[in-house]
Amino acid sequence: MAIVPHLMTLADLSGPQILRVITHAYHLKQLSTPWLAPQLSSGKQPRLRMPSQSLFNKSIALLFSKRSTRTRVAAETASLLLGGRALFLGKEDIQIGVNESPRDTARVIGGMCQGIFARVGDHSEIEELANHSPVPVLNALSSLWHPTQILADLLTLHEHAHLFDPSSPPPTSAVKAHTAVLPTLRPLTIAYVGDSANVLHDMLVTYPRLGHSLRVATPPPPAYQAPVPVWDRVKELKCDEKIWWGTDPREAVQGADVVVTDTWISMGQEAEYEQRVRDFAGYQVTEALCREGGANPDWKFMHCLPRKKHEVDDEVFYGPRSLVFPEADNRKWTIMAAFEPPSLLFGKWDITSERSRKKREVS
Amino acid sequence: MAIVPHLMTLADLSGPQILRVITHAYHLKQLSTPWLAPQLSSGKQPRLRMPSQSLFNKSIALLFSKRSTRTRVAAETASLLLGGRALFLGKEDIQIGVNESPRDTARVIGGMCQGIFARVGDHSEIEELANHSPVPVLNALSSLWHPTQILADLLTLHEHAHLFDPSSPPPTSAVKAHTAVLPTLRPLTIAYVGDSANVLHDMLVTYPRLGHSLRVATPPPPAYQAPVPVWDRVKELKCDEKIWWGTDPREAVQGADVVVTDTWISMGQEAEYEQRVRDFAGYQVTEALCREGGANPDWKFMHCLPRKKHEVDDEVFYGPRSLVFPEADNRKWTIMAAFEPPSLLFGKWDITSERSRKKREVS
Amino acid sequence: MAIVPHLMTLADLSGPQILRVITHAYHLKQLSTPWLAPQLSSGKQPRLRMPSQSLFNKSIALLFSKRSTRTRVAAETASLLLGGRALFLGKEDIQIGVNESPRDTARVIGGMCQGIFARVGDHSEIEELANHSPVPVLNALSSLWHPTQILADLLTLHEHAHLFDPSSPPPTSAVKAHTAVLPTLRPLTIAYVGDSANVLHDMLVTYPRLGHSLRVATPPPPAYQAPVPVWDRVKELKCDEKIWWGTDPREAVQGADVVVTDTWISMGQEAEYEQRVRDFAGYQVTEALCREGGANPDWKFMHCLPRKKHEVDDEVFYGPRSLVFPEADNRKWTIMAAFEPPSLLFGKWDITSERSRKKREVS
Repeated sequence: MAIVPHLMTLADLSGPQILRVITHAYHLKQLSTPWLAPQLSSGKQPRLRMPSQSLFNKSIALLFSKRSTRTRVAAETASLLLGGRALFLGKEDIQIGVNESPRDTARVIGGMCQGIFARVGDHSEIEELANHSPVPVLNALSSLWHPTQILADLLTLHEHAHLFDPSSPPPTSAVKAHTAVLPTLRPLTIAYVGDSANVLHDMLVTYPRLGHSLRVATPPPPAYQAPVPVWDRVKELKCDEKIWWGTDPREAVQGADVVVTDTWISMGQEAEYEQRVRDFAGYQVTEALCREGGANPDWKFMHCLPRKKHEVDDEVFYGPRSLVFPEADNRKWTIMAAFEPPSLLFGKWDITSERSRKKREVS
Repeated sequence: MAIVPHLMTLADLSGPQILRVITHAYHLKQLSTPWLAPQLSSGKQPRLRMPSQSLFNKSIALLFSKRSTRTRVAAETASLLLGGRALFLGKEDIQIGVNESPRDTARVIGGMCQGIFARVGDHSEIEELANHSPVPVLNALSSLWHPTQILADLLTLHEHAHLFDPSSPPPTSAVKAHTAVLPTLRPLTIAYVGDSANVLHDMLVTYPRLGHSLRVATPPPPAYQAPVPVWDRVKELKCDEKIWWGTDPREAVQGADVVVTDTWISMGQEAEYEQRVRDFAGYQVTEALCREGGANPDWKFMHCLPRKKHEVDDEVFYGPRSLVFPEADNRKWTIMAAFEPPSLLFGKWDITSERSRKKREVS
Repeated sequence: MAIVPHLMTLADLSGPQILRVITHAYHLKQLSTPWLAPQLSSGKQPRLRMPSQSLFNKSIALLFSKRSTRTRVAAETASLLLGGRALFLGKEDIQIGVNESPRDTARVIGGMCQGIFARVGDHSEIEELANHSPVPVLNALSSLWHPTQILADLLTLHEHAHLFDPSSPPPTSAVKAHTAVLPTLRPLTIAYVGDSANVLHDMLVTYPRLGHSLRVATPPPPAYQAPVPVWDRVKELKCDEKIWWGTDPREAVQGADVVVTDTWISMGQEAEYEQRVRDFAGYQVTEALCREGGANPDWKFMHCLPRKKHEVDDEVFYGPRSLVFPEADNRKWTIMAAFEPPSLLFGKWDITSERSRKKREVS
């Protein structure tokens, strides 16, 4: 029996493995999009390929101790497209550690489902689940990490490579889905202005290994800084060489191709609302901030949602720089790629060659 | 790209379009009923046709800010029969407008699902969703309208045409499903005694256009009357010519073939309980009320459920006049017809000819 | 039309019918386990048979007025494996008897779904549902009975027959699934030490009829004893002849091959916590208790979960005597057997011969 592969953070995967996952996501999206589009009843129907039913009859448990829209709907719709089922168990349904030990819950759920996608509070909870689960555990969000968000962000950046580099061709039309090639990215400068939270942490261990530079501004430490276990992984992967970190958002966006932010007040932090709004004065992403800071004039904007206005103004959020909705759509395709067995289930089963992947799709 | 079709009220459809939807629902019911019935293992099995899997791999988001049994179970079981999935998101899962703007929610959910079936509080909420959704939005109940309830009521009346007109043949047996013809109705007199609420509003814009007369009794205005936006649609469609409206339930049931009521106290109105029970004194539907008022001796009863005893007594509700349970069953078949792509998804994509519909079922 | 078959307790089935259900569960498990296992992409894939899709397009309503993990996840994953869908309706979704009479709820849900699996408070609630449902009602847990738990326990005991009787061969490997024969059990002595609750009640009406002896210890009556309706069924089935009942756990485990316990404080009994912990002093299942009581040196342990430490210590619970996790896994396979139409849906439709079952699987 192979060791059960879990995915807690993208630091668990190599750079090439990460690119394999998003390449697979890109193919799944190209294949599925025309399949899901409404067909007019008149006229000739195109012959469409059905997405692989590789989760047929299989169940993924969604153990979510926090409310979620994007991650949940992405996981449920992605599972359905693969022929399987995501089984949502919210805090009304199961409270990890309250009525039963996490160890027993992991063993019982893992005995009935083929995977666990867990959104927990403290990161130690998901580590405890992974320690005792007989099936793969994928981190859907923890206090430390948010790997599936960064997979979606990366796919979005690759799809918009032509916006960052005029010599890149725009992505292939969906009609040629199975022969489409994921556009490559030139090395980007990616700025993050906001709180040091799970989204940033997975950016820290991922982008530098793929050739991109990170520029981060948070309010001053010690309140705002990456925790030691995160920083240990960053250094272990030698990502720190490509990270600049300061407290001035203007300085952070200097030369930025992409500007990213996230909520300042996460679920459970509502009590600190006023303090946090004060700490983040000047952090709102606007045209003025990026012009004054010297961002690349073609800079683009990303946000994992839900968005509050103090983080980014309407002009940027709903304007042509914004990639936020394609980014949200890509939660589905990247989670679908991470779910698909046997080659990629949760990212670490043996990852098949391009050839065997195609063979599977054709059959 | 075609304009995205939404359905907020049956006023959005023409009379012939409404009849097409219930004809389609009737066929789906005839086709599916033997398919779902328990098969005995002994003896020869009949060869059954599978319902079309036209929602295969597809997801319909159920955004329900109010609890629901009938509408939810109808939508979930109908989606399954079409090969798809209804994804229930209740008020514990998503609070429209609380953590995120309705605009952003509509865009994100609509980017992952192929349709939205929404049950909201104020009608403006569903209009806001429809304004920003890239996929069709169907109204599952709002403060103003309840279109899917009236579709179910209409199907029920057609199926029981023989009870109103002895010259109508009873409905075809399920065995001949695909050749069955929806029974036609003679012009009926339909009485509604109760509150002016969403169920009544969709009756007002629908029955007159199909040749039926409406007689309505509510307690006196201004507390009990159809709101201006409803009345505007009624007049625009010239439905008011076939509507009588008064405050005496006896007068309303005069000549009635069908008597309809609904709850007097909707979710959220519990504080007004005593006032409302006083206002509706004498409104309970009983044999005596209808005899004294001069209803057609063969009058039938409908109620959208859940039912409270003060609205209708047990003799009527559980007696031979009651169509309430066939009416509840028909929630499923009419929602199924409204969901089915490509011809009828939410009622306004191009509606196919009978011929192409049959062709699809056969293939 | 056949009478609708409901299953309230295993007392409703004959001994041979019970064995048929667990034999069917054993086959479903053997067939499905390799189908669900992760396949490595390299190397030759074994040719696997797909589990029968006998619930295809069909919905089972899970009406659960109490929270549940095992029963719910078992029912949802089992339905999916059969091609159908379990539709979970928790207390947030539907409150039986609050907004609508149980009679109306049963008729409405039963008009849209093909079965009801209900977890209620007082047993009278499920009887009321069964009285009015047009489709089979299966008891998922009530104040009196817990039939599906004992089906899982029985399957677990049969699978481990070789542990109780060295002359029994261990179970056949999964590869030969369809030809595997359920191992037979020698007559066992089964001890239960704990509260007189629903799990015990279904043990009382089941094990004696299958040739096993029961030894029960509870704290003294009248607080701890089986209620009259349970005891009536026990006597009616002449099970009392093989039941010993006392108040000393040491005496109960004498000669025991299997020791079973359950929670002392069920949902809703939290107020009595301190009183109950006092009443159950000395009831914790441990090596010492069983050694002193004179259990069979090879005794095994079962618990329906979730488990609290005061009921059984870690040495037993996580040790080699423990069958608790295979027992939890078997919730899925036995519920799947109970769900499968047409032969076994909820246990009482005509039960097919072995021959017709095999024929169905092959086709």
